Amino acid sequence: MENQDRKRLLIIDAALKRFAHYGLAKTTMTEIAKDIAFSKALLYYYFPDKLSLYVSVIEHLMHQISRDLVKSVEKTSSAAEGILMLVQKRQAFIQKYYKLIEYTKMMGPELPDELQDKFTRARAFELKIITGLLNKGNASGEFSVADLNFTTEIFVEAISGIHFNILNRSKIIYPDKEQFKLIFLKEKRFTEIFLAGLKQTNRS
Amino acid sequence: MENQDRKRLLIIDAALKRFAHYGLAKTTMTEIAKDIAFSKALLYYYFPDKLSLYVSVIEHLMHQISRDLVKSVEKTSSAAEGILMLVQKRQAFIQKYYKLIEYTKMMGPELPDELQDKFTRARAFELKIITGLLNKGNASGEFSVADLNFTTEIFVEAISGIHFNILNRSKIIYPDKEQFKLIFLKEKRFTEIFLAGLKQTNRS
Repeated sequence: MENQDRKRLLIIDAALKRFAHYGLAKTTMTEIAKDIAFSKALLYYYFPDKLSLYVSVIEHLMHQISRDLVKSVEKTSSAAEGILMLVQKRQAFIQKYYKLIEYTKMMGPELPDELQDKFTRARAFELKIITGLLNKGNASGEFSVADLNFTTEIFVEAISGIHFNILNRSKIIYPDKEQFKLIFLKEKRFTEIFLAGLKQTNRS
Repeated sequence: MENQDRKRLLIIDAALKRFAHYGLAKTTMTEIAKDIAFSKALLYYYFPDKLSLYVSVIEHLMHQISRDLVKSVEKTSSAAEGILMLVQKRQAFIQKYYKLIEYTKMMGPELPDELQDKFTRARAFELKIITGLLNKGNASGEFSVADLNFTTEIFVEAISGIHFNILNRSKIIYPDKEQFKLIFLKEKRFTEIFLAGLKQTNRS
């Protein structure tokens, strides 16, 4: 790796730790520079402002998650297991990095284009994996899904409904451990019921 | 019916028509009074302001819907049919009264307590009907649902995810016919898959 790339990665890694622990608003560029003994000037040479660093952190994280997800799903022996694995990985990611993604949740539809783009890609990637797994399930006779893309969308939208309903109803920004537990329990049970439903043939 | 009650109902009925057609903001008390040839003073005697009239309209509507729903569900021959009927009635209600409920959607968590209370009751009523239908399905051997309340919550939250995902993604306040059609198609297919999943026994 080039020296420049290594320095860039060092910064991203330090910023990731700070953002994940304290959130975007409560982290300063000075703190990040200190953590890795960089001058502030050097930090600003790589990232002109905190938002551009944040975007790079999100991008970096999503690459990591995607690689990890693909590997984990490949190890599962059935399509249903693969989808349950994806749901579980997604939950672990959200719980671990809640403070980091909190900012984007607060921004809502006014998200900067650069960030919106990263999330759109992440969503498309997730949909592609699920569609692939449903397809695999069809081929092996595990499922009987007529419209793969349509069914994938329904699944992803429904599961996000469970997530946000719990959070909105209790007007929480940062859910505690018990709330995460309930969300995960519901999402897991939901996935089981939905996948059982896909096993049925002759649906109208 | 007492004369007072009849006058009150006349006002509510006229307001309902205006709100459903033009929304809350674009309707004036003067217009409502004109529609039924009442003096403004008389209108204000029954309802001191537009919000109190709006709350009564919502309450009136919810009573109507509840009665209609119970009747329709009673006519269905299986639990699954009953739940599909409920989903369909809910969709028809949302589409017909979208302009009327739009205001409450805009308000979000800052909804006045009186209104919040009506919606909490409506939600509780809906959950009760679904739990009842799942219970009926268990008794007849149609379903095999371990935790009735938990499963009801999952179902309702998941279906609202489908509804809001479509609307939020396209940043729409008032969806057009095509968008409603897509939402309804997805919700119907979702319900079919979910109910098929509940037919499976021996889930973990």
